Amino acid sequence: MSEALGEFQLIERLRQRSASRDDVLLGIGDDAALLKVPDGHALVVTTDTLIAGRHFPVDTGAADIGWKSLAVNLSDLAAMGAQPAWASLALTLPEADGDWLEDFADGFFELADQHGVALVGGDTTSGPLAITITAHGFVPAQAALRRNGAKVGDDIWVTGTLGDAAGGLAQCRARGIQSAKLRHRLDRPTPRVDVGLALRGLAHAAIDISDGLAADLGHVLMQSGIGADVDIGRLPLSRTLFEHFADESERWRMQLSGGDDYELCFTAATCDALEIERKLEELAVPATVIGRITMEPGLRLLTPENEIFVLTQSGYDHFREASS
Amino acid sequence: MSEALGEFQLIERLRQRSASRDDVLLGIGDDAALLKVPDGHALVVTTDTLIAGRHFPVDTGAADIGWKSLAVNLSDLAAMGAQPAWASLALTLPEADGDWLEDFADGFFELADQHGVALVGGDTTSGPLAITITAHGFVPAQAALRRNGAKVGDDIWVTGTLGDAAGGLAQCRARGIQSAKLRHRLDRPTPRVDVGLALRGLAHAAIDISDGLAADLGHVLMQSGIGADVDIGRLPLSRTLFEHFADESERWRMQLSGGDDYELCFTAATCDALEIERKLEELAVPATVIGRITMEPGLRLLTPENEIFVLTQSGYDHFREASS
Repeated sequence: MSEALGEFQLIERLRQRSASRDDVLLGIGDDAALLKVPDGHALVVTTDTLIAGRHFPVDTGAADIGWKSLAVNLSDLAAMGAQPAWASLALTLPEADGDWLEDFADGFFELADQHGVALVGGDTTSGPLAITITAHGFVPAQAALRRNGAKVGDDIWVTGTLGDAAGGLAQCRARGIQSAKLRHRLDRPTPRVDVGLALRGLAHAAIDISDGLAADLGHVLMQSGIGADVDIGRLPLSRTLFEHFADESERWRMQLSGGDDYELCFTAATCDALEIERKLEELAVPATVIGRITMEPGLRLLTPENEIFVLTQSGYDHFREASS
Repeated sequence: MSEALGEFQLIERLRQRSASRDDVLLGIGDDAALLKVPDGHALVVTTDTLIAGRHFPVDTGAADIGWKSLAVNLSDLAAMGAQPAWASLALTLPEADGDWLEDFADGFFELADQHGVALVGGDTTSGPLAITITAHGFVPAQAALRRNGAKVGDDIWVTGTLGDAAGGLAQCRARGIQSAKLRHRLDRPTPRVDVGLALRGLAHAAIDISDGLAADLGHVLMQSGIGADVDIGRLPLSRTLFEHFADESERWRMQLSGGDDYELCFTAATCDALEIERKLEELAVPATVIGRITMEPGLRLLTPENEIFVLTQSGYDHFREASS
């Protein structure tokens, strides 16, 4: 029942669905888009590619793929404290299937509309399913949340709960009982855009958790030239993950090394903790202090039994699995 | 002898090769890049994907792929009259091959450095070879060259010569005699950035020829709501194409419908013809008037024998071959 579309029809269908913005002087339909960055703001640009079977299970619905491919990019903007504005979409499809595209657009624009993001350009090609999005936003340059600003004594915070997406992926691979909630966390991550905006002027450093807390916090530590003590017992845990995975060490692994949570990890002065709590409560986003920045380099993980593990692996690697 | 690299090493190798620019406040290495658009300018953004075997022959060298994937994007900026500034690179590779990447980077940065373009971000993933680049540039908003500004009576110009890339592709597919010059035109297109800049305030409409003159001029006609008479005998022809393809109608087909030339097609008032000739001579870029914009819609092709063909097909289609 699926309908074959030409490239121009594909693009036209996407163009019609996009929100309009006053700062889009010229959108889809010319050689390039013409856009207006507000005075006094830096342009924030990020690009992420999603490949079927690698960044989402091959059984993932088209609407979820549309949502997620934008979400992972908005999450990067959130981690910079940026206000999202525009996106370009490069879509490679095995076949030009109108029904699939409508579903993809449903998920993509559901999230785009939540954040007022306009689709301003892109490219459609035929080939193995892959989606590359470049997202654009704004931030006053001095207010940007960078990875290199963490200070000794800072609290280390994470939003939401950790490990749910990894739990969803593990269940998907095991082909046994699957929690709809965990799968939803894998398929429909929430980019913490409002949190990033609220943290301007408060957070010293921020990153989004795409490759797992240990790897991503590791980037902050490396770039800030400091270390951290993290209390594993304080890692925020959802009831669902707890109920579906009885083994504590397996849950810890998911919380520390599982990717795809797209929560924010940030550091801030202890004296700002109450202000941060108040702001995130207003946004109804839970956040937890999980540890502290230290002078001594490296990431030390403290178990509730006061055992210490030191992680030296600095990042999850798409070509070689982390050996941590 | 090839060397396997991790994702972070791949990115680091690319980062080290990139030119620096004062307007890159923060480049590769954080969640997103922070960039400064000059006051009074619009941001110009374009995205193009190249897939192996579709947008370049599978035997294409890595350096040529690197060059071409940036060139097709800079060509879009040129067609807007924009000054190129930054690029994001999403690179999907079957394997993390250090030698291949070095060659790719050689071609990419050879062109990037010619235009002072900084690589500011991107993503590397493993999968079937595909390259998506988002290129950014600037233009004073009122000076941008759009597709919809062609006026009745305008001269229609094209830069360079037409059909060479199509000739190179035809020879590659036939696996017979191959002209190095034609193949070079296929693999190393020259984005006409200087021409686009020189045409600000002179051209009424412009487009780059990526899908063939007939299709791309067709977009200008459609969006400007007018038509054109084009004299096939005036289509600029290289000596090499002439020597390698004896059949005149085959050459015409390549000149009209062959893609990948990446020359500019633009329209301008006849009274500005001398000024345009003078400017393009300074840039040492040949340009030819091939026809005239008419009130009557449609693209009419006039042969030297005064036969007339009317093209109604509006575009080359990546999912369905044009039937024209």
